[in-house]
Amino acid sequence: MSLKITLAQINFLVGDIAANSRKIIQTAINARDQLGADICVFSELAVTGYPPEDLLFRPDFIAKAAQAVTEIANNTQGIDVVLGFPEATAEGLYNSAAVLREGAILCVYRKNCLPNYGVFDERRYFKAGHDVTLFTLKNTTLALTICEDIWCDGMLLKNRQAGADIVLTLNASPFHAGKMQLREEVVRKQVKQAAVPLIYVNQVGGQDELIFDGASFVLDQHGVCVMRAAEFKEQLCVIEFINQQPQATLCAPLYDGISSIYQALVLGIRDYVTKNGFQGALLGLSGGIDSALVLALAVDALGAEKVEAVLMPSCYTQDMSTQDAITQAKTLGVRYQTIPIMPAVNAFTEMLAEVFANTKLDATEENIQARCRGVILMALSNKQGKILLTTGNKSEMSVGYATLYGDMAGGFAPIKDVPKLLVYALSRYRNSLSAIIPARVIERPPSAELAPNQVDADSLPIYENLDPILERYIALDQSADEIIAAGFKPEEVRRAISLVDRNEYKRRQSPPGIKITTRAFGRDRRFPITSGYRGVDSQ
Amino acid sequence: MSLKITLAQINFLVGDIAANSRKIIQTAINARDQLGADICVFSELAVTGYPPEDLLFRPDFIAKAAQAVTEIANNTQGIDVVLGFPEATAEGLYNSAAVLREGAILCVYRKNCLPNYGVFDERRYFKAGHDVTLFTLKNTTLALTICEDIWCDGMLLKNRQAGADIVLTLNASPFHAGKMQLREEVVRKQVKQAAVPLIYVNQVGGQDELIFDGASFVLDQHGVCVMRAAEFKEQLCVIEFINQQPQATLCAPLYDGISSIYQALVLGIRDYVTKNGFQGALLGLSGGIDSALVLALAVDALGAEKVEAVLMPSCYTQDMSTQDAITQAKTLGVRYQTIPIMPAVNAFTEMLAEVFANTKLDATEENIQARCRGVILMALSNKQGKILLTTGNKSEMSVGYATLYGDMAGGFAPIKDVPKLLVYALSRYRNSLSAIIPARVIERPPSAELAPNQVDADSLPIYENLDPILERYIALDQSADEIIAAGFKPEEVRRAISLVDRNEYKRRQSPPGIKITTRAFGRDRRFPITSGYRGVDSQ
Repeated sequence: MSLKITLAQINFLVGDIAANSRKIIQTAINARDQLGADICVFSELAVTGYPPEDLLFRPDFIAKAAQAVTEIANNTQGIDVVLGFPEATAEGLYNSAAVLREGAILCVYRKNCLPNYGVFDERRYFKAGHDVTLFTLKNTTLALTICEDIWCDGMLLKNRQAGADIVLTLNASPFHAGKMQLREEVVRKQVKQAAVPLIYVNQVGGQDELIFDGASFVLDQHGVCVMRAAEFKEQLCVIEFINQQPQATLCAPLYDGISSIYQALVLGIRDYVTKNGFQGALLGLSGGIDSALVLALAVDALGAEKVEAVLMPSCYTQDMSTQDAITQAKTLGVRYQTIPIMPAVNAFTEMLAEVFANTKLDATEENIQARCRGVILMALSNKQGKILLTTGNKSEMSVGYATLYGDMAGGFAPIKDVPKLLVYALSRYRNSLSAIIPARVIERPPSAELAPNQVDADSLPIYENLDPILERYIALDQSADEIIAAGFKPEEVRRAISLVDRNEYKRRQSPPGIKITTRAFGRDRRFPITSGYRGVDSQ
Repeated sequence: MSLKITLAQINFLVGDIAANSRKIIQTAINARDQLGADICVFSELAVTGYPPEDLLFRPDFIAKAAQAVTEIANNTQGIDVVLGFPEATAEGLYNSAAVLREGAILCVYRKNCLPNYGVFDERRYFKAGHDVTLFTLKNTTLALTICEDIWCDGMLLKNRQAGADIVLTLNASPFHAGKMQLREEVVRKQVKQAAVPLIYVNQVGGQDELIFDGASFVLDQHGVCVMRAAEFKEQLCVIEFINQQPQATLCAPLYDGISSIYQALVLGIRDYVTKNGFQGALLGLSGGIDSALVLALAVDALGAEKVEAVLMPSCYTQDMSTQDAITQAKTLGVRYQTIPIMPAVNAFTEMLAEVFANTKLDATEENIQARCRGVILMALSNKQGKILLTTGNKSEMSVGYATLYGDMAGGFAPIKDVPKLLVYALSRYRNSLSAIIPARVIERPPSAELAPNQVDADSLPIYENLDPILERYIALDQSADEIIAAGFKPEEVRRAISLVDRNEYKRRQSPPGIKITTRAFGRDRRFPITSGYRGVDSQ
């Protein structure tokens, strides 16, 4: 007895129910006609894309999703279609999975375990289901589960004990570095406990801050991976069960740490830019490493012809910065232009001369330079319909070493969750594929070039110290005392923590960026701006 | 038998456990020594302030809160102190209320009903309790409940049936227009059902987007209000129970609709500015009604000497705008200065002349003007340590009729949740107290003055039509069809909805503002930026 199951790893557009439905129908028909499949499994909330957030409160939206399920059922005869959809009931909304067979809804499973941590807000929207849902196909009993369910100890076992021969899991599991390994490990433990084969279908694609990395897979009842789809792209895979045993087939290799992050960033840029309908992207190219990496990522995501670099030197810009920026732009073949900012800076300086008479130079004057660049970049963005990519990294975002409405201006901040040391590592990684970032950009000390001979190390601990302090404080919730006990210099710990505490207001107005760590700024970390909490006592 | 209960309606600073604890101790001692009270009841999570958000994930923060409870117990002998605190246990964190008596924790109640809708994320942090908690004092049995509990049908009855003579409720219930009336109505129904007197203690104060309006109250067992504290300010009130019957005392009157919103906005500005340690506030005063209202609010919140107005005329600014702005500044006695923007606008125009050759004038050029104003205002803000108040209203925020990094720049947006028609109503209300906004500012057609003879009505439906369409779409989740069926012009409905859909990216980068409606932008409305959902089909 042969049973062919397809895993449909698809890149949906959140909210576009019509387009998602067309994609589901076409994919199911391909699975039926070209792969000879018996069943085609899609990801969690496939009809709406994940996460639809507060669109779920709109009755028109929920009604459209229900109509779409009916339409999909009517247009996919001859194959079982399993998909996720928001199910409205008299008691409330469920995060559900339906089995569609011959024009009808055969059965529905309601997600039991609703994640409400990290980036997830599912209890804001959904009621929890409590039942197991089984259906049979070719004498095989299949069970349905959704994402968080199989991270809950005992859920697979419960399905096995209810009679499941195979468990299907519909997922929208977001990426962070190492997530794929973590995910297989967690799931494997549950599979071994239950001794049941598992089909794991993940969404793929970028959605605002989140990357869904795909990498759908099949584990046999011993927890051995017998199939794995590619990461970071759409794929339609088939696995055959003969006498309820999965027949091992191609397992795509996993990217290693650095390269998986790079691929996530590329996918995140591409999907944000294209799903939001921009003509292309532009960015300020300073000759520093952050903008160099963002340019490389943007070109890899969109192609050189869609990307534009803008050099905006001031009187503090070193010649080597301009040279290196031009070298990189030429190497990558992107269009670039140079718009010196001093005319605008001088205009503001004169306009403010009277008001600022008898005051000392401070960050105000540096911010004016950064904001003049912001005005120019936004003007180019507005005129051309290209999105402005912000080039700040996570270390800067953490300590507020950036100018609001200046270098923080932009529609999307690709490396917002990438700490500075990782910016270096990613740049070296990309250069190892082809040398596109000038070596000097990677080697010279980082500088904002907003004052004479300025380097980051004037204001901040060196990144070799700063980045691990920030990770401990922000991602691991460690206290100053714990971080100091781990061997970091007390004055550097205090300075870093104090800056993190005081700069929430800047982060709140920053553009969205791609989550690649276990705790990104944004929906992942929800801190009050108005706060008397100080990780260190006032100095 | 007399039992004296004090309701401590206090303005806490979220996160500042040390300061909150001092305030709690001092208040309890006052209640004991000056009011002769037997018990002093504080609000929900009083020790940390509400809502502490992801600070709750920090072990150091939770440990400090626990220490604080012990310290408070040790320093408030001779009176029972009831307060809210985050309670760490082996199973997880609870939103709890403790009764402190003679240096010890007498008992703890764990919140049963955890709100996870609207602005609330309590299931992100807390486990739900399941038990009733009773304690006795002077032969009276008192029960503890926390906020959402008494909005859940049957919770009061359950406490009554368990033996409660009086129920105490610790709250952090945020304001929106009409909330106080709604709150008393909901609670009265529960009280009548259970036939038990209720002590309702609310937090007061502004916290980022939220206003806690205070207005703590006591209902007798028939649901009659026998005491009410003032709205929008700290107060320590006492109610005496004789033979378990509350003795009616002063009931502060409630503000009516418009005046309560005005008071909420004043409190929100004052607390954001002072709790975040700013020296004062500044804003761009255009001669239009939005900035006129914000200036009035800021002066009422902070005093004229702490507020500064900046006039930034361009070649499109009409003389009457400048005249009216100066008149208002002089009337209010605030410092003002005039910084014409054309030198900077001209500098940018020249810098971009080559790039923009052969392009048509569009919103780009208007945005440059707005952004030049943003640069000036932020420079003044940076130099002086004063917060920049953003003057945009909710109608603009809804349809994106504002320039990102331009007029949207600022640390706080007081009227971000105030629709334009309500801006007019609030201005007239304020003028009815004393005429501070020139009549012409209220009467002339609104204009952004970014192009010759521009008025808002060139680009948008008139506000009498726009505002109700927006409310139906945004706050009530109505579909275009429903709104049209209610009698609005189809083309205006489509235009408004389409603008709302497309401008989520701007809202995401806007400063926080004060929630005064049932659904504010911000944590209250969580929409994807990347979204294929269109409330109207593409035109």
